[in-house]
Amino acid sequence: MREGGITTFEERAAALDAADPLGAYVDRFVRKPGCVYLDGNSLGPLQHAVQARLKTVIADEWGTGLITSWKEGCWLDLPSQTASRIAPLLGVSDASVTVCDSTSVNLFKLIAAAWQHREGRADILVESTNFPTDLYIASGAAALLGASLRQFDTADELLSSLDASTAIVVLTHVDFRTGAALDIPSVTEEVHARGGRVIWDLSHTTGVFPLALEEWNVDFAVGCGYKFLNGGPGAPSYLYCSPQLLPTVENALPGWWGHAAPFAMSPHYESHPDILRFQTGTPSILSLAALHEALAIWNDIDLDAVRQKVETISSLFIDVVASEATTLLQCISPADPSTRGSHAAFRHPRAAQVMATCIATGVIGDVRPPDIVRFGFAPLALTYSDAVHAAKTLLAAAASCTAGA
Amino acid sequence: MREGGITTFEERAAALDAADPLGAYVDRFVRKPGCVYLDGNSLGPLQHAVQARLKTVIADEWGTGLITSWKEGCWLDLPSQTASRIAPLLGVSDASVTVCDSTSVNLFKLIAAAWQHREGRADILVESTNFPTDLYIASGAAALLGASLRQFDTADELLSSLDASTAIVVLTHVDFRTGAALDIPSVTEEVHARGGRVIWDLSHTTGVFPLALEEWNVDFAVGCGYKFLNGGPGAPSYLYCSPQLLPTVENALPGWWGHAAPFAMSPHYESHPDILRFQTGTPSILSLAALHEALAIWNDIDLDAVRQKVETISSLFIDVVASEATTLLQCISPADPSTRGSHAAFRHPRAAQVMATCIATGVIGDVRPPDIVRFGFAPLALTYSDAVHAAKTLLAAAASCTAGA
Repeated sequence: MREGGITTFEERAAALDAADPLGAYVDRFVRKPGCVYLDGNSLGPLQHAVQARLKTVIADEWGTGLITSWKEGCWLDLPSQTASRIAPLLGVSDASVTVCDSTSVNLFKLIAAAWQHREGRADILVESTNFPTDLYIASGAAALLGASLRQFDTADELLSSLDASTAIVVLTHVDFRTGAALDIPSVTEEVHARGGRVIWDLSHTTGVFPLALEEWNVDFAVGCGYKFLNGGPGAPSYLYCSPQLLPTVENALPGWWGHAAPFAMSPHYESHPDILRFQTGTPSILSLAALHEALAIWNDIDLDAVRQKVETISSLFIDVVASEATTLLQCISPADPSTRGSHAAFRHPRAAQVMATCIATGVIGDVRPPDIVRFGFAPLALTYSDAVHAAKTLLAAAASCTAGA
Repeated sequence: MREGGITTFEERAAALDAADPLGAYVDRFVRKPGCVYLDGNSLGPLQHAVQARLKTVIADEWGTGLITSWKEGCWLDLPSQTASRIAPLLGVSDASVTVCDSTSVNLFKLIAAAWQHREGRADILVESTNFPTDLYIASGAAALLGASLRQFDTADELLSSLDASTAIVVLTHVDFRTGAALDIPSVTEEVHARGGRVIWDLSHTTGVFPLALEEWNVDFAVGCGYKFLNGGPGAPSYLYCSPQLLPTVENALPGWWGHAAPFAMSPHYESHPDILRFQTGTPSILSLAALHEALAIWNDIDLDAVRQKVETISSLFIDVVASEATTLLQCISPADPSTRGSHAAFRHPRAAQVMATCIATGVIGDVRPPDIVRFGFAPLALTYSDAVHAAKTLLAAAASCTAGA
């Protein structure tokens, strides 16, 4: 849609904001005056409630409660309590999710777990558009496990290469560069039809797509806590293991927190009977408490409304950028909003300069090498008017960088 | 030494406090009124400076700096900056230490790294008095690597079993139950003489023993940030790899933070040339910042003075307890303070009840099953008078529990 006639983009945004069922959540986030933050897909913004919670955790639970806070401050239960708040976002039961470690470490655990179901198959398949850490971890895991790693340029190539040797497929749902989303149920079915297991990386997915992993027969999934879950820099990751597979897989990194009775301090390992077996070492309580509190906002939110806002706000942003045909910005995100994550990406020959100009004028996105500028929409923290303002700032930045070429 | 004559334990403690070169540090810690905290070997106390730092990290760096804090808030350099503060405590160069993940995860990385130097040897040796997570991780790593795990009841048994099949020895310097300390240089030499590599767990060591790992030819070491380093609940762990071995070992969990150029986002892994290759996923910034700030206190502290205080304060505590021959408390920590960590442990048939009584009267230690009460001395946060008061509280608690038997 082009700007013009009787409705400007600003008017359209104002109307959308006025009718936004999620608009009231925006004020729960700390906001820097004069700044529109469009990097929620990299680091989600801080909520006032999280700031207050951390103050209590630091001063009262660590400061004066000290060691007694493991029981009295509920630190012992914090991994499970946090998982309970993530489970509905994944469409799974609480008993299938646990929160710990980094996405990289958890992906390693899941690859090693899936390998236990390889049934003589030898190959781990990855696509090169996964976030790089997934490729590196898959490669490290393959080396340890004695698997063959096969890397493909696209998901289509990967899927057409599935065969009787395919043990594990590692796929990212939303491409971290383009925002293009795969179809989880159909891809999962395709991998299963060839006898393989699939591990989904949902780092750019959780909180912006309604999910039904259990209904979709997903085997394993992993995701990060610091993007759209707004858990803070380097927040702990979560992992999902299907209830069917859980009793039959072991954690390759079996630390004391994954023991059936950690405080018995037995010299012999016995796996926790439930999903806690995927825990490893002592959790980072400060980071975990931040994520736990950050997730409280989702308690009474309709994920379909979130998805609707994600599609509308990102389309609006893309429409504004497209309204100026003279820039060198080339949108590389899918035009169909239903197959797009919650960010929009554009190529520009001077991407770094364009982004620096945006940031200098208060619109924060990021650059992905070599030539991509990327803008992420944390749906609970932004208004439609923010998106229009930011898109126009991007247009001006691109124009000034082009002019100065 | 028995109480009596002209000098009471309280008088002795007061004299020691008056002359304590580290006494001024006590006020840097948050203190709960009426409470003597003797569980610094499990969770170190909070410093006022850490509380202030976290406030800034949360409100300014995350809250308004957001994604720009990776560069401007120095988050990118935080693992290295934190390592630089740990290196002097280990007696090694900054370039040999990195900070990340949990102790369990880092131990796994080091076992997998040491395995790369096995030269045909097949055995990993552990002693059952290691902290349990070390045993579990060694067992998990052995299963993945195809190693044979041999478990021994004592370090002496283990050392007398070293042979041409010994690839790796995993030892804990300070026993988490008794506080008994091994001699790192001589044991390391013994393992080396048989051609093996040794990994030391220094979780109960760092901050209470001066160390010279490089001079002692230690191969690998790992330790936790939340005990005597006072980094907060579940603080990140550190790992050490000797400069000689570093160029020849790879990280078995190769995440993007261990890449030579993480932000190039290449689909192919290339190890960081230095110790950062042992990084894996995105670090938990809140937990890491707490540890970084907690370590600042060590900048101008003489570790020999710390060691002197550790020996004197723990001996004083043990002496007070020994002054009452009528209790059922049996000290299981070494009598020679030079071979003792910074905690004192006692058996008592009603250990849990004794500790509950202590805690109810403001002296916090902990229980290790089945029958051990344990009291740890964070040397910078305690006075000698605290120790005497706490020991007398323990005596009264033991007497009341015995009487009520």
